[in-house]
Amino acid sequence: MQEGRKRVIITNVTPQIEGGKYPARRAIGESITVTADIFGDGHDSVAASIVFKHENDQHWDEVAMQFLINDQWEATWRPEKLGFYEYRVTGWIDHYTTWKKGLVKKYEAGQDLAVELLIGVELLDEAGALASETDKPLFSQWAEQLKNEKNREAAVNLAISGSVAEAVGKIRFTNRITVFPTTFQLEIERKKAAYSTWYEFFPRSAAATPQTHGTFKDAERLLPRVAKMGFDTLYFPPIHPIGEMKRKGRNNTLTPAPTDPGSPWAIGNRLGGHKAVHPELGTIEDFEALVQAAKNLGIEIAMDIAYQCAPDHPYVKEHPQWFKWRPDGTVQYAENPPKRYEDILPFDFETKDWENLWNELKSVIDFWIEKGVKVFRIDNPHTKAFAFWEWMIGEVRRKNPEVLFLAEAFTRPRIMERLAKIGFNQSYTYFTWRNTKWELEQYMNELTKTDQQYYFRPNFWPNTPDILPHHLAEGGENAHIIRFLLAATLSSNYGMYGPVYEFGVNTPHPGKEEYTDNEKYEIKHWDWERYSRTAEIITRVNRIRRENTALQSTWNIDFAETDNDSIISFVKTDTETGNALLIAINLDVYNTQGAHIKVPVTKFGLDYHQSYRVSDMLSGEKYYWQGEYNYVQMNPYEMPGHILKIEPLN
Amino acid sequence: MQEGRKRVIITNVTPQIEGGKYPARRAIGESITVTADIFGDGHDSVAASIVFKHENDQHWDEVAMQFLINDQWEATWRPEKLGFYEYRVTGWIDHYTTWKKGLVKKYEAGQDLAVELLIGVELLDEAGALASETDKPLFSQWAEQLKNEKNREAAVNLAISGSVAEAVGKIRFTNRITVFPTTFQLEIERKKAAYSTWYEFFPRSAAATPQTHGTFKDAERLLPRVAKMGFDTLYFPPIHPIGEMKRKGRNNTLTPAPTDPGSPWAIGNRLGGHKAVHPELGTIEDFEALVQAAKNLGIEIAMDIAYQCAPDHPYVKEHPQWFKWRPDGTVQYAENPPKRYEDILPFDFETKDWENLWNELKSVIDFWIEKGVKVFRIDNPHTKAFAFWEWMIGEVRRKNPEVLFLAEAFTRPRIMERLAKIGFNQSYTYFTWRNTKWELEQYMNELTKTDQQYYFRPNFWPNTPDILPHHLAEGGENAHIIRFLLAATLSSNYGMYGPVYEFGVNTPHPGKEEYTDNEKYEIKHWDWERYSRTAEIITRVNRIRRENTALQSTWNIDFAETDNDSIISFVKTDTETGNALLIAINLDVYNTQGAHIKVPVTKFGLDYHQSYRVSDMLSGEKYYWQGEYNYVQMNPYEMPGHILKIEPLN
Repeated sequence: MQEGRKRVIITNVTPQIEGGKYPARRAIGESITVTADIFGDGHDSVAASIVFKHENDQHWDEVAMQFLINDQWEATWRPEKLGFYEYRVTGWIDHYTTWKKGLVKKYEAGQDLAVELLIGVELLDEAGALASETDKPLFSQWAEQLKNEKNREAAVNLAISGSVAEAVGKIRFTNRITVFPTTFQLEIERKKAAYSTWYEFFPRSAAATPQTHGTFKDAERLLPRVAKMGFDTLYFPPIHPIGEMKRKGRNNTLTPAPTDPGSPWAIGNRLGGHKAVHPELGTIEDFEALVQAAKNLGIEIAMDIAYQCAPDHPYVKEHPQWFKWRPDGTVQYAENPPKRYEDILPFDFETKDWENLWNELKSVIDFWIEKGVKVFRIDNPHTKAFAFWEWMIGEVRRKNPEVLFLAEAFTRPRIMERLAKIGFNQSYTYFTWRNTKWELEQYMNELTKTDQQYYFRPNFWPNTPDILPHHLAEGGENAHIIRFLLAATLSSNYGMYGPVYEFGVNTPHPGKEEYTDNEKYEIKHWDWERYSRTAEIITRVNRIRRENTALQSTWNIDFAETDNDSIISFVKTDTETGNALLIAINLDVYNTQGAHIKVPVTKFGLDYHQSYRVSDMLSGEKYYWQGEYNYVQMNPYEMPGHILKIEPLN
Repeated sequence: MQEGRKRVIITNVTPQIEGGKYPARRAIGESITVTADIFGDGHDSVAASIVFKHENDQHWDEVAMQFLINDQWEATWRPEKLGFYEYRVTGWIDHYTTWKKGLVKKYEAGQDLAVELLIGVELLDEAGALASETDKPLFSQWAEQLKNEKNREAAVNLAISGSVAEAVGKIRFTNRITVFPTTFQLEIERKKAAYSTWYEFFPRSAAATPQTHGTFKDAERLLPRVAKMGFDTLYFPPIHPIGEMKRKGRNNTLTPAPTDPGSPWAIGNRLGGHKAVHPELGTIEDFEALVQAAKNLGIEIAMDIAYQCAPDHPYVKEHPQWFKWRPDGTVQYAENPPKRYEDILPFDFETKDWENLWNELKSVIDFWIEKGVKVFRIDNPHTKAFAFWEWMIGEVRRKNPEVLFLAEAFTRPRIMERLAKIGFNQSYTYFTWRNTKWELEQYMNELTKTDQQYYFRPNFWPNTPDILPHHLAEGGENAHIIRFLLAATLSSNYGMYGPVYEFGVNTPHPGKEEYTDNEKYEIKHWDWERYSRTAEIITRVNRIRRENTALQSTWNIDFAETDNDSIISFVKTDTETGNALLIAINLDVYNTQGAHIKVPVTKFGLDYHQSYRVSDMLSGEKYYWQGEYNYVQMNPYEMPGHILKIEPLN
């Protein structure tokens, strides 16, 4: 029979992603809290701890678990190294504490302690036998003291003294310790996984003069502007040679003019594929220079990886077995219903040659990592095999734990969750279509209060080159500012397809939730010097995000009640630094709205009736408030939001 | 690398008890529904099934899963054999269905089908290659037909025909099938696990004349009465020799009179222990005769197993190592705070000799199984090691799957859940203390709508020899009837400590939730012929339970809204037999109460405005109702409940 004397049960361990098959994830600087239900039979005291180590370490650390309520225990710690940690949940019957409690009770009831003290001596002897050689004499000494103690109070004091409890608490009676059978993994990402500010533009539209194909050098010239606006991640659509066969014309037509540049997502032509750059953008060396120049300004270049091929991609001829050929000698073009990509062939992940396909696709990532790229935005990952992503991301991140993958999967919830579980560090979300206060609160609570918080890191995008949501098309500049404020304060990761957003381009393609004259199919020219209220507010908020660590996490949100559904309000708190903000945003694009907010004063260290100063970091205005209910009013044509710092008066 | 072409993901399988370590449980006649989230990448059709078999069978059966919503699938089946089943959840990309859907779409859009039909031929050839020798010609024939088909409509009709779909649906492309890594277990219990009606009395109080120690023969004389009242399980407190050392006196005193019989839970004296019977009750042969006589009347004898010893139990001398001796040569008596059992020594489950202890304790069960006992009520299982129960019950039930264990654990929720997970077939519950409508609804939903429904079978007891709840002590006969009605209709398993309940004995021991002059410590004499309204209603309701299968399950409850918190109402439905009941109970012990009930008419197969006849099986009265909202009124001094059958009119 298996050892039968392990009397403690451990169950309901959280987090537990797919039963522990996948790691929970945290970024450097974030702490992890593990809970479990832990209990024994009978009425003896129980103790529990988490033991953990980085996978490259030999030594296991230990953190004691604290009892919460209803047999639930928890422990919190802050891993400090990048990569994978392992941890185990352990629990045991704590005979010393059981005895101590009984002793105190009997002492307080004035009962005879003679037998109890002898039992204490036995417990100290038993523990001392397992103690280190240094500690052994201490145990003998305490046991001796307990044995000879005539003074009941002194005996009890010795028994409950911190030094004895601590020394006994270190002893582990291995054959009585229950270890939860699953060793859990925890993946520690770099800080950027948790906090990043993305800007997207098409480098081919970066030329200084209109009607000219922009280059990496042009893009380099725009870097200071991007940095000044406070973005730390610059994301380009694919930079590879664009297919010439089946090329798309302007507005997604199938009849391109000879001068039409085609969609950058139709990757590959006679000049190369996923490891080449489109010649009109420059050379790979130009790209590497751009990556370096960006780095010097604190910006990382995020690369778009779209695993798909134009019909003239070299893979099609070199590896025809990677595509699913139909009886008429064609390959069905890619789709992401209702979108059709007539210029793109998908890979066949059921190919018999799948191992070579996987290796080749991974080598694309490895190639660009070598060129300095550490952030990859993956196009439509939900139309490629999950097993491939799990393997590929796993391989890459074990070797390069600083590399990050953003999943561009706008699809069904279970699929988006799965992509995150199997390795994607960030994900596009439904934020793009969540507009009302109820929708936003419900969605944020789903992201931050459920198990998703352990593996699914949202990256909020109010728009993308593929999506011009109705509210941006209809609500003009005010809508752009409101949606930006929401993205940048609700989520610590956000991004925007920038030029159109800043300059308020918002004409929809008739009947679609898309931009007309879409930059995907044509080269644009932007007047980067033009003033816009949106850009000014973006710059201000990005600075506020940098200066306030409460805005650098997404998990730390709590909504505040308001008596007007047009006004959403929430608190973000960094318990480590003490930074705490109250945010209120007017969701009404057209009208001034006012509301009483129920300020969760205790989160700001205030009493219920205390007065305090409220400073709006957006407007610079100050208010004097008191207690819980306070009034705000916002005009969307001026400033539709407040980002408030709160300081107690007196 | 592992096979990379399994494109389907299976996750969130329910039920899943401790990740599949423990079986879900169902009784013969009950069906099991398994759900899982199942999806693939991209937009291909998915199919899924459960494969299952009894552990003693060779052949795996298969049941197709049906798509629900949001990537969730489910399958339901009804296992027919006692014991353990295994099942696996499987899913795969269904290329034939994908193709069929595309074909139909193209056909409806009037597009050319030539290439599509050739793809269909390929799919049929591929499937045919894996078909049975008998089926192979069919596939060739269909492929040929498709190839030569000039008539588009006929081709589409062939493609979507049921016979082709069915034949293709049977083919399994093993290297593309995802099998969820855990093989789950399902334990099928006999019907009594799900539906049982318990009566408890002390055989020593069964003598025909007062002041006489009752015997098994006396108990046998009472069997027809028990059967007539509709009980199918007769449970006795322990029947073993009662300790003479430290024996308790009347009312739990430590100073017994020489004639005091002691508590039957203080087991063992010089005459024997757990495998002996108390001589004044008779012999083991008498007991066996009683078991047989009961069986002839459809009654099973449930035996109380209390793993503990009076100080003069033979184990104490024979196996001193099974007890925890203190430095003064004593063993600390058992406790279940705040109760103290000064007449009882607990076993030490941390003894080095634990294997022999476990084997001996199991042999007690084996001993009584051999004497004909198949139902064991286990005393305070939460004060003995979980690992022991898991092992012992597992061993016993693998050999004797008809044996049932009821856990008498009134303790913390996680502990009660755990005991159920590791093997107990039924459990005492918090029902004893749930009185208000909100409490009862909330508790029933916890038991029946959460994962608990898969492993925790409630057995509702309004009282026990240890517990006289305040509401019974204060509420008199009406309270007894109301609490009985709740127990017997909310839960398909219920029991009562009978004589006091029937005859309304309800004087509390001062300051305690216990009976005074408790039968645990003295011999009683009951006038079994005495009429009581409670007994009459018990008899009536037990008959209604026998005749209505809806009352023989606990999982089939749905509460109905009422506009009066004193009236609780619910529907019980057996979808298999169509039996459905509407129940309403007045929770007010003193006053007539009325309420509008929102009848869930659709559960009775009624339209929203249809008229129907309502027959009360308790009173025999009939009412004519219409639509959803209907009025009931109940006087607790007459009949505080309705058990209603509903028949549509016209």
